[in-house]
Amino acid sequence: MFRELRSSSYSAARTGELVTAHGTVRTPAFVAVATRASVKGVEPGILSALGLELVIANTYHLHLRPGEDAIAALGGLHGFSGWHGPTITDSGGFQVFSLGAGREHGVGKVASIFPGDEPAPRRLDGPPLVRLSEHGAWFRSVVDGSEHTFTPESVITIERKLGADIILPLDECTSPLHDHAYTRAAMERTHRWARRAIEAFRLLADDPTFPNPDQQLFGIVQGGAYEDLRRESTGVIRNMGFDGFAVGGSLGRSKDDMWRVLDWTIPELPPDKPRHLLGIGEIEDVFAAVARGVDTFDCAAPTRMARNGSVFLRDAPRHRIHLRNAAYRIDDRPIDPDCDCPTCAEHSRAYLQHLCRSGELSYYRLATIHNLRFLARLLDDIRAAIAADRFEALAGEWGITLS
Amino acid sequence: MFRELRSSSYSAARTGELVTAHGTVRTPAFVAVATRASVKGVEPGILSALGLELVIANTYHLHLRPGEDAIAALGGLHGFSGWHGPTITDSGGFQVFSLGAGREHGVGKVASIFPGDEPAPRRLDGPPLVRLSEHGAWFRSVVDGSEHTFTPESVITIERKLGADIILPLDECTSPLHDHAYTRAAMERTHRWARRAIEAFRLLADDPTFPNPDQQLFGIVQGGAYEDLRRESTGVIRNMGFDGFAVGGSLGRSKDDMWRVLDWTIPELPPDKPRHLLGIGEIEDVFAAVARGVDTFDCAAPTRMARNGSVFLRDAPRHRIHLRNAAYRIDDRPIDPDCDCPTCAEHSRAYLQHLCRSGELSYYRLATIHNLRFLARLLDDIRAAIAADRFEALAGEWGITLS
Repeated sequence: MFRELRSSSYSAARTGELVTAHGTVRTPAFVAVATRASVKGVEPGILSALGLELVIANTYHLHLRPGEDAIAALGGLHGFSGWHGPTITDSGGFQVFSLGAGREHGVGKVASIFPGDEPAPRRLDGPPLVRLSEHGAWFRSVVDGSEHTFTPESVITIERKLGADIILPLDECTSPLHDHAYTRAAMERTHRWARRAIEAFRLLADDPTFPNPDQQLFGIVQGGAYEDLRRESTGVIRNMGFDGFAVGGSLGRSKDDMWRVLDWTIPELPPDKPRHLLGIGEIEDVFAAVARGVDTFDCAAPTRMARNGSVFLRDAPRHRIHLRNAAYRIDDRPIDPDCDCPTCAEHSRAYLQHLCRSGELSYYRLATIHNLRFLARLLDDIRAAIAADRFEALAGEWGITLS
Repeated sequence: MFRELRSSSYSAARTGELVTAHGTVRTPAFVAVATRASVKGVEPGILSALGLELVIANTYHLHLRPGEDAIAALGGLHGFSGWHGPTITDSGGFQVFSLGAGREHGVGKVASIFPGDEPAPRRLDGPPLVRLSEHGAWFRSVVDGSEHTFTPESVITIERKLGADIILPLDECTSPLHDHAYTRAAMERTHRWARRAIEAFRLLADDPTFPNPDQQLFGIVQGGAYEDLRRESTGVIRNMGFDGFAVGGSLGRSKDDMWRVLDWTIPELPPDKPRHLLGIGEIEDVFAAVARGVDTFDCAAPTRMARNGSVFLRDAPRHRIHLRNAAYRIDDRPIDPDCDCPTCAEHSRAYLQHLCRSGELSYYRLATIHNLRFLARLLDDIRAAIAADRFEALAGEWGITLS
């Protein structure tokens, strides 16, 4: 359930509350990525203290290991992982892309390729890892090579066993390099899969053997970076009775394409339902997405960046510094003197650089904690700014131009 | 400074207090290994909560990276790492062995080779990493190939800059496969180096530019697994005015050899000075060392074992279980139902197995925390048992025969 609390006078930014069986998420919210039921680098027990309210785990990876039956036997994801707060499971649709066309095309969800500069299809090492049919998606396991078929129905069953609060139906995330015809065909199949998922979800709704009786099913809008397809997909998905919506998929060839996709999509979604954006990246993207009415968004970048040595600092180029930089060798300041995270309370840039350069395991957690806390506080500030109708002013204070 | 509090009526086991500039260590104590100023897998901030009172860092590794001048500029190891408790620095003598003869002979400090079964000297890849002379030890850096000469004097200077509470002089740790003649020559050189270290330590004693004015210098007894040499080394080292003693290794070809080395050494050391054992391994070794009057001992095994999936459990073969074992796949019990560590409070064997198998970074910390806390509690129990003059009974309760 979603309650809008306040919206901006100047943009589509809004605050609200996303109510789930395991707690209420204040939106806009950053969603920590816990692909394998663990946010990389930190233990579940610290997430609440860092101000995180929602995590997203992955159906594909958890089906492969340890398997949904093991997780169900341990009380679902909440009992299994010890994270007792609101949880989403992604459906495996992203892996349809990342192990399939994305791997073949050598691109991510935003291709970052200039028009006309198409890369040649790559000759892949080894056999294909994904095949698609009307029936569903066939996968070869990245863990042990075993074969797995995901259908819209089986994914719902898996997600019922995993027991997340918000679950997503199987979809096909297309590549930014797919043409209009392919993207339309994939979208239409995704719509048919969505109907099958809803039906499967209803059939399993009253089964008391699943760990979480109060799951919500969100619909995923597809259509790539094609305006007509996005508008069509939004029109179809919004009327299927989903509890909320996710904007999936190829998000085009540039950040500008990504924002256009949101501009075609979100205004057409019902305002009384939450909107999730699947997978974005940097600080400026957070502002741009929130300005377009995104309520929740997941992002592996803060944790991945931390592991690579990049940590957030507001007053730095691109809002980050690189701890391996020689300038920090005897720098006794914390990463961010204004940060209240345990890492900044205890440790200097010099010590963190030493741990990072030495490959000490303790480094990964300390840096990840900072980046997660930094983002949680940014979202606190964003919510407060929206409530005071000064979100756009806050963006300006961060040096970000909302286009 | 050391105060003996209570000694066993049945063995050389004793409790005491090791007083340092950064706090008092209750002995017998397990010393956590923080080679690069970080205990592998955990942040410094959690060590006290786990009941750890003493850590040992390594002069060789910290000299190479980040360098003693950087650490001195940040307040010595205490200011640098955020671990504010008692700290030892090892001298680099172990690296003389591990990068030199140990590498060449293909053995550790305890060779575990049956008599007559000598391995052939190995053909090493690449150039030598260590050369020794009367002057000192020449090293080629394992980090970047740069060349470094350690002398007894330069090691003291480095350790003064690192600022640990207890420092060790440069020594030569011989190989279990070195013969009597070589071991004697190395021992005699180590004695000459010890005198030079004491002299250097005195010369630098009143220099206020070093971060820790109240360092203690311990002497290292050498002599391999040869009784005459161990007795001779003990007699020489004990009369040099050191603040305490370490039994350095080679410790022979078997555990029995190791215990014999302690039997030849510790009874000859003055009872009013602390005795450290450099590097031992398993639970049964802890009892055997304590029974022989060892006050402190360092051990990388608990943290290394944890990273490999082995976690301590009293009522299990060899006092450990292996988390990758299929039996734990849906085991919702903590590692040890009697453990009070944060890992056992929050997480099941099933979840830890999943993290371990998935290679999640969070696994390493969670498992390491358990093993460190388990050992800290064991030492609590050992101290209490000695105080009640029932240490030998405690060993029996653990199924350990004190030979």
